[in-house]
Amino acid sequence: MGKRIHNFNAGPAALPLPVLEKIREELLDFKGSGMSILEVSHRSKWFDDVINDAVERTKRILNLGDDFHVLFIQGGASMQFCMVPMNLCIEGKPADYINTGTWATKAIKEAKVLKKDVRVIASSEDKNFSYIPKDYKISADSAYLHFTSNNTIKGTQWRELPQVKDVPLVSDMSSDFMSRPFDVRPFGLIYAGAQKNIGPAGTCMVIVRKDMLKRTPGDLPAMLKYTTFADNNSMYNTPSCFSIYVIALVLKWLEETIGGLEKMAQINRQKGDVIYGFIDKSDFYKGTAEKDSRSLMNVTFRLPTEDLEKKFIAEATDNRLGGLKGHRSVGGCRASIYNATGLDAVKTLTEFMAEFERKAG
Amino acid sequence: MGKRIHNFNAGPAALPLPVLEKIREELLDFKGSGMSILEVSHRSKWFDDVINDAVERTKRILNLGDDFHVLFIQGGASMQFCMVPMNLCIEGKPADYINTGTWATKAIKEAKVLKKDVRVIASSEDKNFSYIPKDYKISADSAYLHFTSNNTIKGTQWRELPQVKDVPLVSDMSSDFMSRPFDVRPFGLIYAGAQKNIGPAGTCMVIVRKDMLKRTPGDLPAMLKYTTFADNNSMYNTPSCFSIYVIALVLKWLEETIGGLEKMAQINRQKGDVIYGFIDKSDFYKGTAEKDSRSLMNVTFRLPTEDLEKKFIAEATDNRLGGLKGHRSVGGCRASIYNATGLDAVKTLTEFMAEFERKAG
Repeated sequence: MGKRIHNFNAGPAALPLPVLEKIREELLDFKGSGMSILEVSHRSKWFDDVINDAVERTKRILNLGDDFHVLFIQGGASMQFCMVPMNLCIEGKPADYINTGTWATKAIKEAKVLKKDVRVIASSEDKNFSYIPKDYKISADSAYLHFTSNNTIKGTQWRELPQVKDVPLVSDMSSDFMSRPFDVRPFGLIYAGAQKNIGPAGTCMVIVRKDMLKRTPGDLPAMLKYTTFADNNSMYNTPSCFSIYVIALVLKWLEETIGGLEKMAQINRQKGDVIYGFIDKSDFYKGTAEKDSRSLMNVTFRLPTEDLEKKFIAEATDNRLGGLKGHRSVGGCRASIYNATGLDAVKTLTEFMAEFERKAG
Repeated sequence: MGKRIHNFNAGPAALPLPVLEKIREELLDFKGSGMSILEVSHRSKWFDDVINDAVERTKRILNLGDDFHVLFIQGGASMQFCMVPMNLCIEGKPADYINTGTWATKAIKEAKVLKKDVRVIASSEDKNFSYIPKDYKISADSAYLHFTSNNTIKGTQWRELPQVKDVPLVSDMSSDFMSRPFDVRPFGLIYAGAQKNIGPAGTCMVIVRKDMLKRTPGDLPAMLKYTTFADNNSMYNTPSCFSIYVIALVLKWLEETIGGLEKMAQINRQKGDVIYGFIDKSDFYKGTAEKDSRSLMNVTFRLPTEDLEKKFIAEATDNRLGGLKGHRSVGGCRASIYNATGLDAVKTLTEFMAEFERKAG
């Protein structure tokens, strides 16, 4: 086996090495079943234990009460862009959205395709989505307020969540879910594609407050109704079993090896301090997000020229630092430093950045 | 590692052992990338090669021309129950369905939920879905004719596909896809949940004839339009990467180890001859499907009493023969003998059945 790299991919992204080793260890025989986890029935005791473990760990880690369902739905966050308005809109009430970039824009677009009454109450498009809006007014008449908690492409993140009273928050947390503690009570629904912080691609975790399910219209197809998933522990049909299995392993690592969300958040802050501290001292590297909106998950930065950026990414790759290319829509560089990318990786990266600057300067 | 069992699960089901071994071998370092296949970006050369390999193998194995797209869509066959009518119905033309059991019934239900003009032109409900209808009239005025090629629960299978002229066939082939060659030309669309014959749960393969895409209405959400997947090589958003990777490995096994679909069909016929031959000679075991409609994938049978069935399943499990319980909706016994369950497993099963009968008799 070759040496593993430091993985700064934006998603699919790094997974904890002990999780990968566990998958490998039991791949041909899952817990004495004589079958791979890829081969056991989703209606078996074996898989029941897996999905229930994933749900219970999620509830413990996030401190969720019994008023929430934890669901696993296929199709990624993009499917939630349409399922959210299909299920949660209320006739006569607008659905409020805050636009902080590509993913929020897509969520808004899908709600509009469905001819819902969409109201964009704030946007940072005026400055190329480089910040999180602060001035916006939340109206009590809206069906929900949708926001994207972290923006992978522009490298911005909500430091404090929007303050609402009676309006349920709905959030696409794909890229910072399980990276820090937060108060779940104002949320009606949270969704997160697994492939950043909690697992491989192929499952979106959806956390929905039970009272929100009353909004689901009866005339939706079964696979587009949250009630279908809530009523069947996400197993109305065969779920993406392997993804759920890996999610359970990652959450076990988060709980038992890291020690929970507070600890995880501490480590993530340390990682952010190291790399943003380095960038702020440099005239060579420039962060693209406004300082008070910077993401602790996706660190976006530019070099003096595009040629230098190309060279930087190529040399980094040669030095086993992978995934540093910015999103194809914006260019530049991006280091995604999700939960499984450790402080050591971030330190190695900044050392490489310092050395590259020295040689180029 | 414990001994692997003979796996007769209905899905998720057995995978070829060399496929599992290959996954295990490269799980921590995919092709020298220094990352797991679970960690590589879906926008990378590594994953591009995987998905293109899966598509190309599918085209070669099924002899598909350039007039077909091969797509990977999440949500299983159940999601296709609604996507098919959403995308392929035509105003003023009825959509024809043949009802051969639970899955066809669900497909019909979803089309009706969408308020489409559904016409059930044949059904075997009169005899508890124990046969494939032969007397039905195909009308040239329909948008498509939908049928379920194999019925996992009742153990029936279409021997010959419906003969159509101008009406495109649409088929749920989840449980016998890639088990035998067939003429793709009359098909407008084929879908198959991967977790029976071609991979793990988490991806549905959809083969669609390009001219059918003209029917997709513009006002559907992105994730519900076939055009979104066709225009982006199934990567409008992050696909279920790992499932697609395993599918590519299974198809490589089918092409290179088995030798293609003709060979696979030969083996499947042999397996069917062994187990149905045994059942037909026995007064103890009774097949539940009519002889000319029997499935070569799911062999459903009963024992004289439910108590004996329980005992049979328990003793089989003790003898490392797993997954023999019938579907929870019908009871009885079922041996699912998909591609990856070999002739040796079927012979071992019939030997066990003979021994059990001898002891019980």
